[in-house]
Amino acid sequence: MAVYTEVDDKALADFLADFDLGPAIAFKGIAEGVENSNYLLETAKSRFILTLFEKRVNEEDLPYFMGVMDHLALKGFPAPLPVKANDGKALRTLCGRPAVIITFLTGMSLSRPNVEQCRDLGIGLAKFHDALSDYSGSRKNSLSVDAWHPMFKGREKEANAINAGLTSHIQSDLDELKANWPKDLPSGVIHADLFPDNAFFLDDKLTGVIDFYFACNDALAYDIAICLNAWCFEDSRGEYNVTKGRAMLAGYQSIRPLEDAEKDALPILCRGAAMRFFLTRLVDWADTPRDALVRPKNPIEYAEKLGFHRNAKGFFDYGG
Amino acid sequence: MAVYTEVDDKALADFLADFDLGPAIAFKGIAEGVENSNYLLETAKSRFILTLFEKRVNEEDLPYFMGVMDHLALKGFPAPLPVKANDGKALRTLCGRPAVIITFLTGMSLSRPNVEQCRDLGIGLAKFHDALSDYSGSRKNSLSVDAWHPMFKGREKEANAINAGLTSHIQSDLDELKANWPKDLPSGVIHADLFPDNAFFLDDKLTGVIDFYFACNDALAYDIAICLNAWCFEDSRGEYNVTKGRAMLAGYQSIRPLEDAEKDALPILCRGAAMRFFLTRLVDWADTPRDALVRPKNPIEYAEKLGFHRNAKGFFDYGG
Repeated sequence: MAVYTEVDDKALADFLADFDLGPAIAFKGIAEGVENSNYLLETAKSRFILTLFEKRVNEEDLPYFMGVMDHLALKGFPAPLPVKANDGKALRTLCGRPAVIITFLTGMSLSRPNVEQCRDLGIGLAKFHDALSDYSGSRKNSLSVDAWHPMFKGREKEANAINAGLTSHIQSDLDELKANWPKDLPSGVIHADLFPDNAFFLDDKLTGVIDFYFACNDALAYDIAICLNAWCFEDSRGEYNVTKGRAMLAGYQSIRPLEDAEKDALPILCRGAAMRFFLTRLVDWADTPRDALVRPKNPIEYAEKLGFHRNAKGFFDYGG
Repeated sequence: MAVYTEVDDKALADFLADFDLGPAIAFKGIAEGVENSNYLLETAKSRFILTLFEKRVNEEDLPYFMGVMDHLALKGFPAPLPVKANDGKALRTLCGRPAVIITFLTGMSLSRPNVEQCRDLGIGLAKFHDALSDYSGSRKNSLSVDAWHPMFKGREKEANAINAGLTSHIQSDLDELKANWPKDLPSGVIHADLFPDNAFFLDDKLTGVIDFYFACNDALAYDIAICLNAWCFEDSRGEYNVTKGRAMLAGYQSIRPLEDAEKDALPILCRGAAMRFFLTRLVDWADTPRDALVRPKNPIEYAEKLGFHRNAKGFFDYGG
């Protein structure tokens, strides 16, 4: 959570000159997202979020992400809309970085989602998948099963330092995931990072989804697996709350019923999703310099979730 | 610029239950101020800033700061107003820290104030002094001349590491400041930290002043000296822009003409103000751990400003 690129009032005024929004009347760096710099921007017209894309985001992917947001808005899904400049383009350059202004969404991120909120998240996720079912863009999931072995290579000592014996568990997980990773499941655009940080609620209702910068084309059920991992475990421990999982799956299926192949694949998809976040956190944990602005998340949370998935036998273990 | 204390949705809801503001509909950590944690808070009623006071702020001083803001609002000066809870008190506790909700001000902080903006800042500073002339609270300036010798003690090597020979300059500055520091100048409540970060403008007009957490009772002209240092030098160098200084002084004197004693004291007050910021930055620079969330400001900027003040002969050197 940080602002990596400082945008001063003059740079902002020059940037806004290409839009029909009027001059800024308030502008504050906000602590949102760990990948990009974000500012709250207010003009006489409305409030917006200004995002500058930092080094981790591949510039070539940005049109895909912009298109996802445009498409969601077109379908009435509550996501921020990229604001077009006078030349019709939303994606621009500010302080040497790709930058975009998106609309501001109200709503609160939840620290501990309750059962009803998990249900509504499931409904929202299915609507998200439906809304994007005719989106023409395509982007490969670069953090899926083929990436995991290479990501872990050379990290064996670090994993054992987190938990003695963890490395051998991870090695066998990786082998099993590679051997058994499902193919040919119903696929489409997935959010791929729909953690509670990226969802806004008012009371128990989902009012907005943000941060589409991991979106890609992959198995839709893999997105469910990511959400079960992110929403349905007890705080930071490997204890799965099956009541929340049941509510999320029921909510999802009230919009898009799962096929049998998706239900059968859920344990391996959940194990893979936990592996993906374990590995990226392990890399960040080990590689982030001590003077960094952002404190990386401890990978142990996902090592513990992997322990649950290793023992899961079927869909019913997740509340299905 | 950071959020030191994470406030989750549940802690916030409990906190807001004691106010008549309704539930939060948006809540974002903002990168404002280096001393405290700040959040943008929105309810159906309005927008606010929620501040949690971190370790650097002395809790005993908080009623003085709240009173300053209340008093300014009473006089129509554009400063945030602390919002009272249902028991009539604005100052409360959240996540184990003193916390206050203040009203949100629009306006933009300036990266490079122009001459007209310096003039309006001078006008605003004089109005600020006038508005607080009948404020009954009192707080000693703990970062004034008596504090400077002790702050520099043991830092001689660090100062020479910044600039060879700097330590002997600082030592003689400290001795001259101690010997010649003015007494009995017109005094009252000063802001004591009115940098461009803490002032909001729309076009060339000052629309708001924030961050009263260094406010104290001291010579009013010392507040001008702080502003001349902070607003009227060229970027990070020891080059004084006398046109800006003249505009600021003229703006100030259009509201409150300076007495002769204040004019005569301006060079030593400016030198003292530069010393105060040089020393606090030197301490922060040397003492901040490498993994800190906040990058300290380089003290060299104020070492260079000290060089200008050392050679100033009188009020006219500042545009008076």
